[in-house]
Amino acid sequence: MDITILSIFPRMFQALNESLIGKAQEKKLVNIDVVDFRGFTTNKQNHVDDGTYGGGAGMLLQAQPIYDAMDYVEKEKPGKKRVILLDPAGKTFNTQMARDFAKEDQLVFICGHYEGFDERVKDLVTDEVSIGDYILTGGELPTMSMIDATLRFVPGVLGNSVSAEEESFSNGLLEYPQYSRPADFRGKKVPEVLTSGDHEKIRLWRLTQSLKKTLERRPDLLENADLTDEEQKILRKIRRNN
Amino acid sequence: MDITILSIFPRMFQALNESLIGKAQEKKLVNIDVVDFRGFTTNKQNHVDDGTYGGGAGMLLQAQPIYDAMDYVEKEKPGKKRVILLDPAGKTFNTQMARDFAKEDQLVFICGHYEGFDERVKDLVTDEVSIGDYILTGGELPTMSMIDATLRFVPGVLGNSVSAEEESFSNGLLEYPQYSRPADFRGKKVPEVLTSGDHEKIRLWRLTQSLKKTLERRPDLLENADLTDEEQKILRKIRRNN
Repeated sequence: MDITILSIFPRMFQALNESLIGKAQEKKLVNIDVVDFRGFTTNKQNHVDDGTYGGGAGMLLQAQPIYDAMDYVEKEKPGKKRVILLDPAGKTFNTQMARDFAKEDQLVFICGHYEGFDERVKDLVTDEVSIGDYILTGGELPTMSMIDATLRFVPGVLGNSVSAEEESFSNGLLEYPQYSRPADFRGKKVPEVLTSGDHEKIRLWRLTQSLKKTLERRPDLLENADLTDEEQKILRKIRRNN
Repeated sequence: MDITILSIFPRMFQALNESLIGKAQEKKLVNIDVVDFRGFTTNKQNHVDDGTYGGGAGMLLQAQPIYDAMDYVEKEKPGKKRVILLDPAGKTFNTQMARDFAKEDQLVFICGHYEGFDERVKDLVTDEVSIGDYILTGGELPTMSMIDATLRFVPGVLGNSVSAEEESFSNGLLEYPQYSRPADFRGKKVPEVLTSGDHEKIRLWRLTQSLKKTLERRPDLLENADLTDEEQKILRKIRRNN
C-alpha cells in the first residue's frame, strides 16, 4: 500500500515511525510519504492561508497550494487514488471504512488546518470523512488515527492476524473483560471461570459478557449485528433476567 | 492545565510540540508530561504485557505497571484528577466532553496497547471514553486528538477565541462553505453573494447553507440543536422546497 499525506506539519508524522506502523514500514508493507504543501505556494511569504470571502474570524487554507501539491503527487505516483479529506460534515469513520481503505493501492490524505479550507478543495477528493463530533486544530492527528486503523487490516501488519477480527466491533459486539497475571492483584481477583480450564464454560462466559456489555452500553450495535442463533438465545436470556 | 499521559511510546507525543498545542505549551497555558509505564515493571525483561486468563490470541497489558505509574503520578502531582481511559465500550468523545475536560485542573490519559488491558485498570479511571467505532493499535493517537480538541477550549490557546465557538458542532450545526482568494481559481468561482458586500445577505446565505447541509448530512444534529426562531423559520422553508 502507498500512502501520501498533504500537510503543513510534516514533523508530526514522525509518530508513525513508532509502534506497529513503524514496523509495517520497515517490513515494506506500506510506504508513507508526507508532502508539505507550503512548498507549493506562489506568494513570497509562503502563506498557505488568507481571509474568507464574505468576512468572518480567522483564516482559510487556500485552494492553490493544495491543488498544485496534488498535481505533483499525481505526476510522481500516477494511478487510481482514494483521496480523503477530513471534514466534520463527512461520513463518520468506522471499522468498515478502515477495511475498505485497506483494499486500496493508493491513499492520499489532505490535512486541513486553521479555521478550515477553501470549499473548492473538495473537488479534489473522493471521500469526505469525519472522525467524530469534535473539532481539532488540524487533520494530522485524525489522519494518523485513520492510517493506524486501516493498516491493521493490511495482511501482515498485525503479527497475529486473528487479532484484528477478534476485537470490539469486528463481530459487531463490544469485547468481554480480559485479565492477565497475577490472579490476585491488590486484592482484586480474576473471575473464577477464567482459571477453571473449562474452555466451553469460558467461551460462554465471554460471549455472555460481550452481549451484556453491548446491550447495556451500545444497544444500537445489536440492531446491526449479525447474531448467531446461540447469541440470540443468550441475549433473550439476558433480557429476561434484567 | 496539567496533563499527564501514561504510555509505553513516549516519543509519539513529540507531535504535540507542533502547531497550536506546541504554542500552548510555550505560553505555559498547559504542561504536558509523558510517563513511560514500562519503567514501572517489576520483571527483569521490562515486559508490560502477558497472556490472557482463559486463553485467546495476543497479549494483554498488565495492571501492575499501570497501577504503580499512577501511584507515582499521584505522589508527584497530588490533587483531584480526571483519569481517562480509551475504551471502545466507553462514552463517545465529542465537543461537549472536550469543553468539560477543559475546565479541569488535571487530566491523566492512560494509553492502552496491544490487544487490550487487564480489566482491573478500569478501577483507576474516572472516564472510559471511546473515540469512535474503530480500533487502533494504541491509545496514543486518540489521546493526542482528545488533548487537541480539549485545549481549543482553554482560554488563550486559540489566537482568536471566537473561532472555537464558530465552527461545526459548536452551535449544533455543520459549517457553511467557505472560500478564500482568488475569486476564480481554475474556473471554479466563489458564490456571488460572498463578494457582494451585503452583510445581511451573506449572513442569511451562510445560515441557510449551514442548515441545508446539516439537514442533508446529519439530520440527527438538528434534533438536539437549540435553534433560534430565525433558524427554525429557514429550516421550514428548506423543507418545503425539497
